[in-house]
Amino acid sequence: MNDWLADVKWDAQGLVPAIAQDATTGEILMVAWMNHEALEETARTLRSVYWSRSRKKLWRKGEESGHVQNVSEIRLDCDNDVILLKIEQLGGIACHTGRRSCFFQKLDLDAQGQGHWVTTAPVLKNPADIYSK
Amino acid sequence: MNDWLADVKWDAQGLVPAIAQDATTGEILMVAWMNHEALEETARTLRSVYWSRSRKKLWRKGEESGHVQNVSEIRLDCDNDVILLKIEQLGGIACHTGRRSCFFQKLDLDAQGQGHWVTTAPVLKNPADIYSK
Repeated sequence: MNDWLADVKWDAQGLVPAIAQDATTGEILMVAWMNHEALEETARTLRSVYWSRSRKKLWRKGEESGHVQNVSEIRLDCDNDVILLKIEQLGGIACHTGRRSCFFQKLDLDAQGQGHWVTTAPVLKNPADIYSK
Repeated sequence: MNDWLADVKWDAQGLVPAIAQDATTGEILMVAWMNHEALEETARTLRSVYWSRSRKKLWRKGEESGHVQNVSEIRLDCDNDVILLKIEQLGGIACHTGRRSCFFQKLDLDAQGQGHWVTTAPVLKNPADIYSK
């Protein structure tokens, strides 16, 4: 094992969260999880590879959709338990809903302090079209 | 319970990760965890409140250091399990190491693909001075 991978503080499931941030605009596009193998392959190929917790397998971002992420920088936080990727999002869509970013729900608070989540970004491509083969 | 809080998909420990992003520059300053109470108080006071997993109590960011985070926006991702805060970092220091951001370790890869983490940001204030009373 490379030392730099051993420096990462993996959780009880052997995972760390990874933030994908647009390298140019600074926009946060998504958060997913990585295991040891995913991070190693991401660094080696400079394309984002995550661990899909639902499918329980490596998830090479864009392998079905074509929405590959080119990685220009990999960072680690002070506690060694969160990864930050600076990326270029091919196709301009990171989210499985067909939106640019996964963070399209914004909390709206009324005068009484009651909140609700408002969708703030358009669907750029129909998900059915993203994942059709 | 407010509906908007019920929309959040808390993990088995009742927590979600929360990213604090500089509202002006887009820089990612830190990632911490929130429980239901932390998120509710954050929305009500518009100051970041986290859940300290190590101290097992609410962590009102800046309560000791003065490095309060004023919250201008609260966002939720498509899976409802990650929070994004757009903030103003008072004092200019988010990290307990005395640096602006927690993400000061950058992966440096040599020609052989061997990596190591390089510290890329200066300590702005001695941590001993941040937390002294």
